[in-house]
Amino acid sequence: MESELERKGRAAKAASRILANLSAKQKNEALERMAKELLAHKEEIVSANQRDVHNARAKGLKGSLINRLLLDEAGLEEISRGLLDLTGLPDPVGEVVAGWTRPNRLQIQQIRVPIGVVGMIYEARPNVTVDAAGLCLKSGNAVILRGGSEAIESNLALTRALQGALLKAGLPEGAVQLVEATDREVVNQMLRLNKYLDVLIPRGGEGLIRLVVENATVPVIETGTGNCHVFVDRDADFDKGIAITVNAKTQRPGVCNAAETLLVDREIAAEFLPRVTDALIGKGVELRGCPETVGIVPGIKPATEDDWATEYLDLIMAVKVVSGVEEVIDHIAAYGTKHSEVIVTENYSRARKFLQEVDAAAVYVNASTRFTDGGRFGFGAEIGISTQKLHARGPMGLREMTTTKYIILGEGQIV
Amino acid sequence: MESELERKGRAAKAASRILANLSAKQKNEALERMAKELLAHKEEIVSANQRDVHNARAKGLKGSLINRLLLDEAGLEEISRGLLDLTGLPDPVGEVVAGWTRPNRLQIQQIRVPIGVVGMIYEARPNVTVDAAGLCLKSGNAVILRGGSEAIESNLALTRALQGALLKAGLPEGAVQLVEATDREVVNQMLRLNKYLDVLIPRGGEGLIRLVVENATVPVIETGTGNCHVFVDRDADFDKGIAITVNAKTQRPGVCNAAETLLVDREIAAEFLPRVTDALIGKGVELRGCPETVGIVPGIKPATEDDWATEYLDLIMAVKVVSGVEEVIDHIAAYGTKHSEVIVTENYSRARKFLQEVDAAAVYVNASTRFTDGGRFGFGAEIGISTQKLHARGPMGLREMTTTKYIILGEGQIV
Repeated sequence: MESELERKGRAAKAASRILANLSAKQKNEALERMAKELLAHKEEIVSANQRDVHNARAKGLKGSLINRLLLDEAGLEEISRGLLDLTGLPDPVGEVVAGWTRPNRLQIQQIRVPIGVVGMIYEARPNVTVDAAGLCLKSGNAVILRGGSEAIESNLALTRALQGALLKAGLPEGAVQLVEATDREVVNQMLRLNKYLDVLIPRGGEGLIRLVVENATVPVIETGTGNCHVFVDRDADFDKGIAITVNAKTQRPGVCNAAETLLVDREIAAEFLPRVTDALIGKGVELRGCPETVGIVPGIKPATEDDWATEYLDLIMAVKVVSGVEEVIDHIAAYGTKHSEVIVTENYSRARKFLQEVDAAAVYVNASTRFTDGGRFGFGAEIGISTQKLHARGPMGLREMTTTKYIILGEGQIV
Repeated sequence: MESELERKGRAAKAASRILANLSAKQKNEALERMAKELLAHKEEIVSANQRDVHNARAKGLKGSLINRLLLDEAGLEEISRGLLDLTGLPDPVGEVVAGWTRPNRLQIQQIRVPIGVVGMIYEARPNVTVDAAGLCLKSGNAVILRGGSEAIESNLALTRALQGALLKAGLPEGAVQLVEATDREVVNQMLRLNKYLDVLIPRGGEGLIRLVVENATVPVIETGTGNCHVFVDRDADFDKGIAITVNAKTQRPGVCNAAETLLVDREIAAEFLPRVTDALIGKGVELRGCPETVGIVPGIKPATEDDWATEYLDLIMAVKVVSGVEEVIDHIAAYGTKHSEVIVTENYSRARKFLQEVDAAAVYVNASTRFTDGGRFGFGAEIGISTQKLHARGPMGLREMTTTKYIILGEGQIV
């Protein structure tokens, strides 16, 4: 008998051929229906979510996980608005990326097309179910969703509403499907479903990302780990340095674009460190310093080698005094995860050197790492932040959910 | 003790940081030195190649493999000219792909940068060693090469010459390295060398590609399989249909962009099939036809289900009579490998439908599949033809050997 994944894979493939040929208008109408249908099923969805929350509590899941799981009426309305927002974004499909004519008069055009079938593997947040469905639909892709087992009731209710909307819009249910099995084995099958999946996007903690990267034969877009640094150069404006460090560390410490290590130029360390550490400690940040830092600001816990490599995702920050931009570039190359890196400086040449030589998805002068985000970049929506170099790097919006094909117009040319 | 791969990975990573910051002028000078050094070591390289050929003959390798392995003086001169040709191509690194200013005055630019360290795994042809080294250097990437064990002597001699040139150009040897171990185990290690490799590009037969795709944890760009179709529509110009079919099948049957199946519209089958099959048979092609084809052209061997899915890479072609473009699109979706697909027609609407709905790297109207090639597309050079959808699709030139990073210029912005 055909497995659930085989069946859903086949349906997704068939749906993807229809989705690839829809006009932007048809896709926007479907998104509007999806937004409406979610609200029409508000009670059913919220009560499904309450069952998930109840089960999670019974299993003793910790508070932060239960918070992520929670979906109330207001949350659902926000998710629904997110789908409507997508209708206002330009459709990436059909864009002519490049075009030229060869000496033999062959006309070559590179056209943006959907990827095909996307597999999403994610954890507790049920809003990802709807966000991913909307982004995939708008970019002309079918999607197979595999959410966390704790959110299964919510995800089933959400998917039922979305599929109802698809049918009303005259589109196949196969466009948006949820894997109903909640065992680990189904994930392993999904990682090797090359026959139907064109790409896998894992979203979640490091364990999930590792599992997918190490076991998938389907091409993966790796998302998520961010050991980000703020470097305050000798020519920094101190106020900017403090504001950026505090913002990058504390505005939302649990996300991948939060900063984890502060690097301070030795020339200004004695003056700058007491001010910035005061501000950080005032915001409840626990600091771990190199010996020089501890010498300047007594009472700071000493950092170990591990601290330079740790993504705390918490109100903890490592602090190191450095000899200058050269050492910083080496430090980031050794310990960074190529996500987001900042130099705070008024010096043109060191800013340029940092931008040129630091290898990361996003490299900043005088701004917070927290801007590395599809919304804040102006993409209107985000499916995740790629920390790999292939295909997409940094925040991924609708354009990153596409590939291209070459169209070649001839008049009988042969080789 | 550090393994060969660990040591070379570390050297490649260090070299990649230097390569990423070279000017186009520095890279072109290094390419010129590499071209020169190959010629200066002509005797050494050719005699190393003769040892490889001798060993291959002793092991009883078949003629076609020995042909691929062969590198004489003329071949070496051609390879050397290939390096010089690269100096004339534009440097993709540093291109501003996109740029915009956010409402908060953050300036965001997306800049093209090298990928970092490329792993190439390939088979018998020693010219790939030099081509890949040149393409990687020009695009600012370090490369670790793992060629076939039959070509080890040639590859060692070639790499020695290239590394000598690098040193003379003031660049690190780590920019171009060959894996000297010829066992399978070293390949398995390379597939999981995530710490140092940013991408793996396998080039070779289906077995090699499968091995890499199924076992690599390093991101892979899949190259190579092409089950390409020529569809001759009811409104085709017959002369174009015959010329394109014959060219696509016979001009070089052993390559991935050669055609494998001919699809002919039922309305013209009785008239067109005898003419096209005559021309194909005249070129030595063995045909395998559907029942209708066999009915129209007696003596053709009947095709089995397997024939529709086979990449012959040989003077064999499957032939099928179809009801029209709709059936063709379904047939290609079922059996194609998304490489190169052709419609021969004078009908505008069916041409447009075929271009829109066929999902392949290259979709043609009235031209041969054999044009799917970096050189023929005008890229000047080619590292392979991607048959996956992520990162690069179709012929890969220098641009496809790069990724991007975002550079963000602020003035103290925080979230």
